[in-house]
Amino acid sequence: MAKRGVIIVAGGSGRRMQSAIPKQFLLLGGMPVVARTINTFSEAMPGAEIVVVLPKEDIEMWRNLVARFDVAVHRCVAGGKERFHSVKCGLEALSPEVEYVAVHDGVRALVSKRVIIRTMLDAERSGASIPVMEVADSYRRVTVEGSEIVPRTELRIVQTPQIFDATLLRKAYEQEFDTEFTDDASVVERLGHKISLVEGERTNLKLTTPDDLSWAEWWLEQESNA
Amino acid sequence: MAKRGVIIVAGGSGRRMQSAIPKQFLLLGGMPVVARTINTFSEAMPGAEIVVVLPKEDIEMWRNLVARFDVAVHRCVAGGKERFHSVKCGLEALSPEVEYVAVHDGVRALVSKRVIIRTMLDAERSGASIPVMEVADSYRRVTVEGSEIVPRTELRIVQTPQIFDATLLRKAYEQEFDTEFTDDASVVERLGHKISLVEGERTNLKLTTPDDLSWAEWWLEQESNA
Repeated sequence: MAKRGVIIVAGGSGRRMQSAIPKQFLLLGGMPVVARTINTFSEAMPGAEIVVVLPKEDIEMWRNLVARFDVAVHRCVAGGKERFHSVKCGLEALSPEVEYVAVHDGVRALVSKRVIIRTMLDAERSGASIPVMEVADSYRRVTVEGSEIVPRTELRIVQTPQIFDATLLRKAYEQEFDTEFTDDASVVERLGHKISLVEGERTNLKLTTPDDLSWAEWWLEQESNA
Repeated sequence: MAKRGVIIVAGGSGRRMQSAIPKQFLLLGGMPVVARTINTFSEAMPGAEIVVVLPKEDIEMWRNLVARFDVAVHRCVAGGKERFHSVKCGLEALSPEVEYVAVHDGVRALVSKRVIIRTMLDAERSGASIPVMEVADSYRRVTVEGSEIVPRTELRIVQTPQIFDATLLRKAYEQEFDTEFTDDASVVERLGHKISLVEGERTNLKLTTPDDLSWAEWWLEQESNA
């Protein structure tokens, strides 16, 4: 089996959470948000190398936390200024033998093994695969003159993990940073490589506010009752 | 004060809810979803004429329900094939004296008075106002060749109520139905009238699955505790 790597980007400052503790360290179902994410990847991709990218100033707090919870084996590296730079730090920390790399937002802690495996299988076929969701709402695009409707059947919400052939992803991240790089797919796409889409999951959300976390607690309870 | 009308579109079949009872009639916080929506509008727009548009076959069930709950005064009319036709039925049921019309999705039962009033005030200035939300996720547009990133700073999620000058809205709904009409703003826009945007609310969601309703129950509990 191809050697796999996982980069979990947990670089957020937590300011939006109105909390002194970075949001990715807050507890969800009795476990720090990022720790839950790590464990799900460890189960979905057994044997994968897992690298967590954190702000430099949070690494010590993280090590103290890890000692108190049952967290799967992972390495921890300091991130950069933008998400782009943090992913680059993660890439550099992975072994050169890694053939496929999954990049995931640390705060998407409700990601399911199902979505990870689905995206992985598709990446092995296509070289670049991401989970997306169809949209239920109407959308508009703000323009210079005002705004206009966006045909909703064409729109997809992008999630993570975004999984790539490692050589492709490394080459993509040799490009200069551009503010239009909002995710890894946009970086890879700039090389001219097509992005393959698989179905994501409604609950695979970024947990970035106290409300999000309360909702996630409630969701985990529902799941364990089901 | 200008005479106001409200059209609450509750035409969904409820099939997605895995329930014999139409989803808009299910209980939320001890009150049918649509009844809660009606009461919020009645409080936010005192004196407004409220028309609820329902599938013809559901009207009797609705009347039986209304008798058992404390629901604000409203009229009830049968809808049409598409949402477009249902709104048209609602428009025809409103008095000719109505000067502003709010159109709202019946299943957006957590809409706040704040959002209704904000949109109303803006509609009185602009003639056509809708609440929208900035997006946090990345989006892609599916194209013939594959897919491409959509600049997220330009994207807005459209909500309801969508509120219009009544003459403008009536004129807009004289147009032939087009499948590109996904909301009322898109119908009005076809006339060449600009749509003004105000800020919506994260919780102003369409409640269309059992999970959505459980979440909404939880949300109401949070709110009443706060």
